[in-house]
Amino acid sequence: MIQNLLEGKRGIIFGALNEKSIAWKVAEKAKEQGAIFTLSNTPAACRMGEVIDLSHKTEAELIPADATSVEDLQNVFARSQEVLGGKVDFVLHSIGMSLNVRKKRLYNDLDYNFLGKTLDISAISFHKMLQVAYKMDAISEWGSVVALTYVAAQRTLFGYNDMADAKALLESIARSFGYIYGCERHVRINTISQSPTATTAGSGVSGFDGLMDFSDRMSPLGNASADDCANFCVTMFSDLTKKITMQNLFHDGGFSSMGMSERAMSQYNKSFESEK
Amino acid sequence: MIQNLLEGKRGIIFGALNEKSIAWKVAEKAKEQGAIFTLSNTPAACRMGEVIDLSHKTEAELIPADATSVEDLQNVFARSQEVLGGKVDFVLHSIGMSLNVRKKRLYNDLDYNFLGKTLDISAISFHKMLQVAYKMDAISEWGSVVALTYVAAQRTLFGYNDMADAKALLESIARSFGYIYGCERHVRINTISQSPTATTAGSGVSGFDGLMDFSDRMSPLGNASADDCANFCVTMFSDLTKKITMQNLFHDGGFSSMGMSERAMSQYNKSFESEK
Amino acid sequence: MIQNLLEGKRGIIFGALNEKSIAWKVAEKAKEQGAIFTLSNTPAACRMGEVIDLSHKTEAELIPADATSVEDLQNVFARSQEVLGGKVDFVLHSIGMSLNVRKKRLYNDLDYNFLGKTLDISAISFHKMLQVAYKMDAISEWGSVVALTYVAAQRTLFGYNDMADAKALLESIARSFGYIYGCERHVRINTISQSPTATTAGSGVSGFDGLMDFSDRMSPLGNASADDCANFCVTMFSDLTKKITMQNLFHDGGFSSMGMSERAMSQYNKSFESEK
Amino acid sequence: MIQNLLEGKRGIIFGALNEKSIAWKVAEKAKEQGAIFTLSNTPAACRMGEVIDLSHKTEAELIPADATSVEDLQNVFARSQEVLGGKVDFVLHSIGMSLNVRKKRLYNDLDYNFLGKTLDISAISFHKMLQVAYKMDAISEWGSVVALTYVAAQRTLFGYNDMADAKALLESIARSFGYIYGCERHVRINTISQSPTATTAGSGVSGFDGLMDFSDRMSPLGNASADDCANFCVTMFSDLTKKITMQNLFHDGGFSSMGMSERAMSQYNKSFESEK
Repeated sequence: MIQNLLEGKRGIIFGALNEKSIAWKVAEKAKEQGAIFTLSNTPAACRMGEVIDLSHKTEAELIPADATSVEDLQNVFARSQEVLGGKVDFVLHSIGMSLNVRKKRLYNDLDYNFLGKTLDISAISFHKMLQVAYKMDAISEWGSVVALTYVAAQRTLFGYNDMADAKALLESIARSFGYIYGCERHVRINTISQSPTATTAGSGVSGFDGLMDFSDRMSPLGNASADDCANFCVTMFSDLTKKITMQNLFHDGGFSSMGMSERAMSQYNKSFESEK
Repeated sequence: MIQNLLEGKRGIIFGALNEKSIAWKVAEKAKEQGAIFTLSNTPAACRMGEVIDLSHKTEAELIPADATSVEDLQNVFARSQEVLGGKVDFVLHSIGMSLNVRKKRLYNDLDYNFLGKTLDISAISFHKMLQVAYKMDAISEWGSVVALTYVAAQRTLFGYNDMADAKALLESIARSFGYIYGCERHVRINTISQSPTATTAGSGVSGFDGLMDFSDRMSPLGNASADDCANFCVTMFSDLTKKITMQNLFHDGGFSSMGMSERAMSQYNKSFESEK
Repeated sequence: MIQNLLEGKRGIIFGALNEKSIAWKVAEKAKEQGAIFTLSNTPAACRMGEVIDLSHKTEAELIPADATSVEDLQNVFARSQEVLGGKVDFVLHSIGMSLNVRKKRLYNDLDYNFLGKTLDISAISFHKMLQVAYKMDAISEWGSVVALTYVAAQRTLFGYNDMADAKALLESIARSFGYIYGCERHVRINTISQSPTATTAGSGVSGFDGLMDFSDRMSPLGNASADDCANFCVTMFSDLTKKITMQNLFHDGGFSSMGMSERAMSQYNKSFESEK
Repeated sequence: MIQNLLEGKRGIIFGALNEKSIAWKVAEKAKEQGAIFTLSNTPAACRMGEVIDLSHKTEAELIPADATSVEDLQNVFARSQEVLGGKVDFVLHSIGMSLNVRKKRLYNDLDYNFLGKTLDISAISFHKMLQVAYKMDAISEWGSVVALTYVAAQRTLFGYNDMADAKALLESIARSFGYIYGCERHVRINTISQSPTATTAGSGVSGFDGLMDFSDRMSPLGNASADDCANFCVTMFSDLTKKITMQNLFHDGGFSSMGMSERAMSQYNKSFESEK
C-alpha cells in the first residue's frame, strides 16, 4: 500500500460532517498518507459527536468557523499554522448549502435573500478563504487548494436549482484566484467535479435516487464514490501534480464525456414497455 | 438591404447608455428591422440627454429602473406590455458594473460588499428579470432573451477582476433559467460572448488598450464591433434561430478558438528587439 | 415573411439527397431568401429523381462530384463560379458516411480501411473543399462556410461509432482552416451541431429511435428539425453574422447544456415500474 | 520521497526517443515508483544508442514496432505480457509526427498523403493500440492508458498545422474507446494536454521559441516540464485515480484557463516601444 504521499504536509480540511462526507474520507486518507491537518466546520457541526470522533481519530484539531466570516477564517488559518507548526500545504473546500433547495423554492421562484446566502456559503466562502490565506501568507509555495464541485455548473440538472449557479461561480473563483496565487506564490487552485455522491448534502436534492441510478448507468466506470474522490484529492495535494492549476477536473467515471450509454438507453427503453 | 427581420416583434432593451453602447446599436438595428420596443436604464442614466435622444430617435419609451429591484423590473415589464400592445418577444440584458474595478481593489483584496453588488447588478439582475417576466407571463411563446458576456467567464484576464466571476454566474443563470423557460413556454435564453468593445463600461478595465490590440491581432477576423454584435443580436431575436437555447455564443472574430496567431506572435516577438 | 436575407448571394450546397436532408431544406430556404446556388452530390445520388427535382425546383445546376476527389471539387468550384457569375458567398458541407456503421463493425472491431474512408468522406473532404476554394480564390471576401456536425464529437453516444471521431476531426478542420481563411480573406468557417435528425444518414445509427426520444425529452425546446436547422444556416450565410468564425454552434433545443431534465428523468423512472 | 506508487504494476511505454522525451521521463519515474515495463519505438529509433541506454537503465525490454501496424502492436502486447509476467496495467502513447510540418507544407497547401500519414501515426495508432489490447485482453481490470496531447486540439496555433487535427482526433479516440473499454473491462483512458515542451518533436514546430516564451509568461506556474508531466502520468497510472476516464487533463501551468496575464501583456506592450 502507498504510504507516504503526503508525508510532511500540513493541511486544513473544511466540511467533514459525518462518515458519508467526502471531506471525512479525505481526512482519513490524508492521515494514512502521512499528513497532519486541522478540521473546520460550522460551530453547530463541530458540536456533533461524529465530527469530534473524526478529530480524535485523525489527531486533528477541530476549529469551528462560519466560512462566510472573514474573521473566523483568519482564526482558522492562524490557529492551524500554530497547531501544525508552519504554513499550510493543502486546503480542501467542501462546503455548500442552498436554502432555496431546503425550502423547496423552485428556480423560477427563488427567494433572493436565500440566493445571496447560497452564493455566499457555497462559492464566495472560497474566495474569502483564499484572500485570507493570501493576506496572511498562510499557504506555502507550491501549496495545493481543491474545492469540490459538480457537473451542474456546466449542464442543467432539474432540481439542482441555484446550487448550479453557485458551483459555476465557485469554479470561476478557482480560475480567477488561481491566476493570482499561481503567479505570486506558485499556489495551485483546482476544482474536482465529482459524481453525485450520497452524502447528507447530496441527498437533499430532489429526485436524487433516480439521478444516481441514471448517472451510474451512463458512466462507463460507474459513479465515483466518496472514497475514490478522496484518493484523487490526495494526488492533487501531493508534489506529483505541481503544474496543474485553474482546472476543473472531472472525477466521475466518465459521465461528463458521455452522451448516451447502451446501459442507460436500455434501461430508458424499458419505460416504454411499462406504458403499453 | 434586409428590412423586415423583426417585423411585428416587441422588445425591451436594457443598458443603452450612449452611442458606443452595444445596447444602443441593438436599438438602432432592431428599429431598422421593424421591431418596436422600450428602453430601460438606471434613473441616473435615463436623465442623460443621449439616452433621451435614442428614445426619440427609435420611438421607444424610456423606462427608468434599477435592474436589481424586483419592483422596478415588474414595472418595466408591465409598462412595456402596455405601451407595445402585448407580450414581449425579445429582451436584451446589457448590464454590468463592478465597484471593485472602479475603486481599483485588486482581486486578492476584494471588498465583499462591492463583490455582492457586482454579482447583483451584473448577474443576479438577469435572474430577477427572467423571474419577473416568468411570473407575469410577459414573454411570448418562442420569445428570445439575450445577455451580453465576455470570454473572461472561461479564461482569466488580469484586470477583469470580479467581473469574470459575475459573467460566469450570468452564463450559468442563462442555462439554468433557459431550461425552465424553454420547457414551460418555449422561451430561449442565450448569452453572446463579445470581443472587447470600446464602450464606456469596457474602457474602465485596466490595461484595456493593450488588450484590445492583442485581441484584435489574435482574432482572424479582428475584434467584432458593437455594430457587428447588434447585427448578430437581431438574428438571435428573429424567428430563424428558434431552437438555439442555453448557449454561450462567441461573437469575437475567432478569438475564443485561437491559441496563437502569426500576427500576434510577430508583434510579441518585436518586444525582444526593443530589449536588446 | 422575411424575404431577402440572402439577396445577391451565390452558394454551393453539398449533400442534398432527399427531402429529409438538411441540405435539401437549406436549398429551399436559401432560394426563398433570394440566393442563387449550385447543388453537388455523388454521381450516384445525382442520378436519383429526387435530387434532379430539387435542382429544377430551385433552379440550381446539379454538379456531380466525389467530395474526396480534389479534381472533382475543383470542377465544382470552377463550374459554380461560371454558372453563378462570380465568386461564391456561401458553402454548405453536409456529408458523412461510415462503412463501419453500415457493416455493423463495432468500435472495438473497426476495419481500418473503412475508418480511413469514414475520415476521408466525412471530414477530410471538408479540408479538400476549403483548400481547393482557397487556391482557386473561389470564395468572396466575408464569405461563409458551414459544415454540419453532431454532439458526438464531444460526448460519446454508443452506436455512433467512428462517426464521432470523424466529427471531431471535422470540427478541428473548421477551426484550423478558419484561422487561415479568416486572416487572409475574411472568410468565416463554422460548424453547426444539430439535434439528431431523422434523415437517411441519421437513421442508419443503431438505436436511433430511442435516442431521438431521449434527446427530445432532454431538450427544453425539443429536438431541432431539419427545417429549423436550415433557418439557422440562412442566418449564418447572411451578412448579419460576419464576425463569427471557428465556432461550433449548438442548434439542438438546448440538449448540449442539459445534464438531466424532469421530462427525461420521469420517463426513465417509469422503466423501474415495468421491472417490478 | 514517494517510492511505491506503482509497485507491482506492469506497463508499456511508447515513444521514448532521448532524454528530452516525456516518455523517457515517464520511464524513469515509473521505475522509481516500482513499476516494471517494456519500451517500444520505431525500429529506426530502437537502433539509437540513447534508447538502448534507457532500456538498460530501466531494465526494460525494448520492442521495436511501427505503431501503425496492427501486427507489430500485437507483438508488443504479446511480448510485453510474456516478459512482464502478466497483463499490462498501464500504457503510455507518446507518438506524433507530421510530414506536412517536416516538409513545410502550409495548412492551406497540405499534401493529402502526408495528412493521411499524420493521422495514422499520431492518432489512429492509438485506436490500433487499444483495439489490439482489447482483442488480446492484454490490459488488466482497472488498467490505465494515457496519450499525450496539446491544447492545439481546442485552439489554433499557427504553425502547428495538421498536428492540431491529429490531436483532436486522438482525444476523440480516447473518449470513444474509453467508453467501451470502461464499460467492459474497467480500463480508463485519458489524454494529458501538456505545455509546449522542448522535445525533439516539439522543436520541429515553426516559431517554437517565441511560443514557448509566450506560453511561459501566460501560465501562472510557467510551462510544465517533461519531468513535471512524468510525475502526473505516474499518478494517472496509480490506483488513486481509478474513476477518471474519457478526460482531457490540462497539465500546463494554467495556460488553458488564461485569457491574458499581466506578465505576457507587459512583454507584448514593449513591442510598441520598439516600433516608435
